[in-house]
Amino acid sequence: MKLVTYRRHPADAGRLGALVDDTVVDIARLGEATGEPLPGTMLDFIDLGPDAVRVASDLLDEMRGDWPLGVRLPRASVTLLAPIPRPRKNVFGIGLNYLEHIAEAARGLDTPAGMPEAPVVFSKPPTAVIGPDAPILHNAAMTQQLDWEVELAVVMGTTATRIDEAAAMDHVFGYSVMLDVSARDNRRAGQWIFSKGQDSYAPFGPCIVTADEIDDPHDLALWLTKNGEEKQRSNTGFMYFKIPQLIADISSGITLEPGDVIATGTPEGVGAGREPQEWMWPGDVIEYGVEGIGTMRNPVVKIG
Amino acid sequence: MKLVTYRRHPADAGRLGALVDDTVVDIARLGEATGEPLPGTMLDFIDLGPDAVRVASDLLDEMRGDWPLGVRLPRASVTLLAPIPRPRKNVFGIGLNYLEHIAEAARGLDTPAGMPEAPVVFSKPPTAVIGPDAPILHNAAMTQQLDWEVELAVVMGTTATRIDEAAAMDHVFGYSVMLDVSARDNRRAGQWIFSKGQDSYAPFGPCIVTADEIDDPHDLALWLTKNGEEKQRSNTGFMYFKIPQLIADISSGITLEPGDVIATGTPEGVGAGREPQEWMWPGDVIEYGVEGIGTMRNPVVKIG
Repeated sequence: MKLVTYRRHPADAGRLGALVDDTVVDIARLGEATGEPLPGTMLDFIDLGPDAVRVASDLLDEMRGDWPLGVRLPRASVTLLAPIPRPRKNVFGIGLNYLEHIAEAARGLDTPAGMPEAPVVFSKPPTAVIGPDAPILHNAAMTQQLDWEVELAVVMGTTATRIDEAAAMDHVFGYSVMLDVSARDNRRAGQWIFSKGQDSYAPFGPCIVTADEIDDPHDLALWLTKNGEEKQRSNTGFMYFKIPQLIADISSGITLEPGDVIATGTPEGVGAGREPQEWMWPGDVIEYGVEGIGTMRNPVVKIG
Repeated sequence: MKLVTYRRHPADAGRLGALVDDTVVDIARLGEATGEPLPGTMLDFIDLGPDAVRVASDLLDEMRGDWPLGVRLPRASVTLLAPIPRPRKNVFGIGLNYLEHIAEAARGLDTPAGMPEAPVVFSKPPTAVIGPDAPILHNAAMTQQLDWEVELAVVMGTTATRIDEAAAMDHVFGYSVMLDVSARDNRRAGQWIFSKGQDSYAPFGPCIVTADEIDDPHDLALWLTKNGEEKQRSNTGFMYFKIPQLIADISSGITLEPGDVIATGTPEGVGAGREPQEWMWPGDVIEYGVEGIGTMRNPVVKIG
């Protein structure tokens, strides 16, 4: 399933839906119409575990072509929010996790040129999350170096404390896309939460594809364009620390919970790594995606 | 008021209380008994804004000496949890914010010896929070360098986006104590969330003192002992970046929300700064406090 959080009117709370062709099927209403109680939000759905995925998926198959009235809406009539509009804790980001990006970062930033011995884990507050088409905020009083990084996002399904690599993938609910926005000139004694954690610096979406529909998360193309011009194109196969290692590593000290998000790092092609360096400015439009998940689009908008 | 989150039985959810003499007054029950609706949890109370503080404070004064039955419990009969057992986002920590600590950190760690140009902001996930008397987890497979740092914690009362220093203190709900636990040997390419954000690495409590009861948060003694031996003693007056600067700085990019916690940095005397260096081990008991707020105690316990 491709699961989304959507709303019809700006004042509505987000509701859980599934993308089916060019419609959004409301999961709770599908449940009501068929007598299977299903929850109305993504986090409540994730909390129910694999049973909910199976039940909802079966219902979608069963009802396809014979939808009860009111259960689905044209996709064009709704606004998609981030699939989890408000994560329960900070988003985990992984720095320096694609080989060529390590090299470009060492050239354009002040990071070490060697391979990291362990994943470089940083965080973004939940307040940084925005959804498809929402503006990335550019505050010229704060930054002249706003950069892009397209990433595969892993969404956790079940609580994971000190999980070994062999069991790690059992804890994955699904996959999504995150743009790891950074104000490169806002780093503080090496700490990245301020430079990467500002409001709007974690565009996330457009959907979560459940894990059963991704054959190999380490063989997905990912790309990014700025104003239509390609800036990043690579494959998740070039990740240095793979997803089971990331989950095992983070959960060795920090309990991962249902709905937690891990952004797995970016390939080469970021603005800081270019010669000359290149940044995002108000008026720019960033489009990016991961194969099998979907495409995101966010405009850059001036504030302050 | 000294506000706490308490429970009577291990299976209970935490409830909001006020420390009065050697009792805990249940705020929601006080409200029921007096016809003033008051909420049952700390976050719901903070969300109500300054009105709730005034109403609850007046009721406590009014009823003192004539408590309705069932409204208060002997403090010894309850367990205190962290005052906010589950913050809404990561806790913000401030590194290198006391002058002598900057010097000892440069000696014992790899941090710069000069004064930081801007606050060094890092984060701890909400899963790191524990309360009074709860165990600090020591996993010998992960760390041989578990360190202490006693800090004044600021609890936000109202949403703050791009707040200037002059208005910053109006957004403070109150003050508490946090122990910033670090596994010094778990730092990753300079990022601190993993070394400072593991489960149990943010002991927090014992109460939140509302801002009206702290005359000057920059003139409070703070101290820490390990197994009864004094390791840290200083005064919050030695903070380099003061609280209004910290709130203005973080909120310049990251929206602060009601209940958000900022741990304001530690004075000298941490284990990494000693000669020879000294660490926490299973069996140790750490006691620490801030003047006018209270004393915390956490044992160090082996896991793994």
